[in-house]
Amino acid sequence: MPGGVSTPVRVLGVDPGLHITGYGVLEMIGKRIRLIEAGVVKSRAETLEGRVRDIFTGVREVIEKAEPGSLALEALYSHYKRPMTAVLMGHARGAICLAAALSGLPVISYPSTAVKKTLTGHGRAPKDQIQRAIQYELGLKSYPNPPDVADALAIALCHIYTFM
Amino acid sequence: MPGGVSTPVRVLGVDPGLHITGYGVLEMIGKRIRLIEAGVVKSRAETLEGRVRDIFTGVREVIEKAEPGSLALEALYSHYKRPMTAVLMGHARGAICLAAALSGLPVISYPSTAVKKTLTGHGRAPKDQIQRAIQYELGLKSYPNPPDVADALAIALCHIYTFM
Repeated sequence: MPGGVSTPVRVLGVDPGLHITGYGVLEMIGKRIRLIEAGVVKSRAETLEGRVRDIFTGVREVIEKAEPGSLALEALYSHYKRPMTAVLMGHARGAICLAAALSGLPVISYPSTAVKKTLTGHGRAPKDQIQRAIQYELGLKSYPNPPDVADALAIALCHIYTFM
Repeated sequence: MPGGVSTPVRVLGVDPGLHITGYGVLEMIGKRIRLIEAGVVKSRAETLEGRVRDIFTGVREVIEKAEPGSLALEALYSHYKRPMTAVLMGHARGAICLAAALSGLPVISYPSTAVKKTLTGHGRAPKDQIQRAIQYELGLKSYPNPPDVADALAIALCHIYTFM
């Protein structure tokens, strides 16, 4: 459980992808955590540069509207099963890092296992257990959907639990 | 050999990297190809987001100054020997694609073998043969250096030879 903060702190969690990028903004006041906004940035552009532009623009809009103090991402792995998919994801991640940097936001990365362990106590917890943990902690009526939003919220929650 | 264009056309070739990004702007007037500018964008930022920002800013400056009509990059492979390096390069490539998209420049990619074949006739030509080809075609006094600049110029030349 988080220790609490006296002034409101907002964290933007992002799950990068060239097709769908999930995001979620959480706010902590005292020991209470509140969901400010969550959703996805979608791109239907046909070119890689068009997709990267849409992701960058979408994430910039979220940053400008919700004014988070930091941006949290899943850390890079040392090994990827599908290098091509990973390189394409790298393009999206680069655009998101850039959106953060241009707004002066620090970017913090957490390994996937650390996110799972922080939320459930187990580094290899299945997806639905993570979703239940998020639902419970944020007092949501249902699981966050699509999974990209759940993953983004999980990373934001992990950051709050780790540092606050 | 290129067919020639009646109005000047400028191409920006880029060789993306998180540490050093090589670039080169070539202009074609009639059947003559001229080197406008070439160099590297370096970043000494300690964070990934800082590096991505420096690359984006540097490439934007080149685009604003040299006003190219398109940006040429090496195409992604289907297999990478070092996936982690490839993902990090993906971040740089994403920032470069974004710089192009925000200036309305089309991004064109050429497989490494196509670049080599266009310049030398051989898809597996060694590095020094590529450098000699660039030196000869552009009438340079010496090999373009560092290699990142040579690679950027090779991609720009390949684009000119392919389409003009």
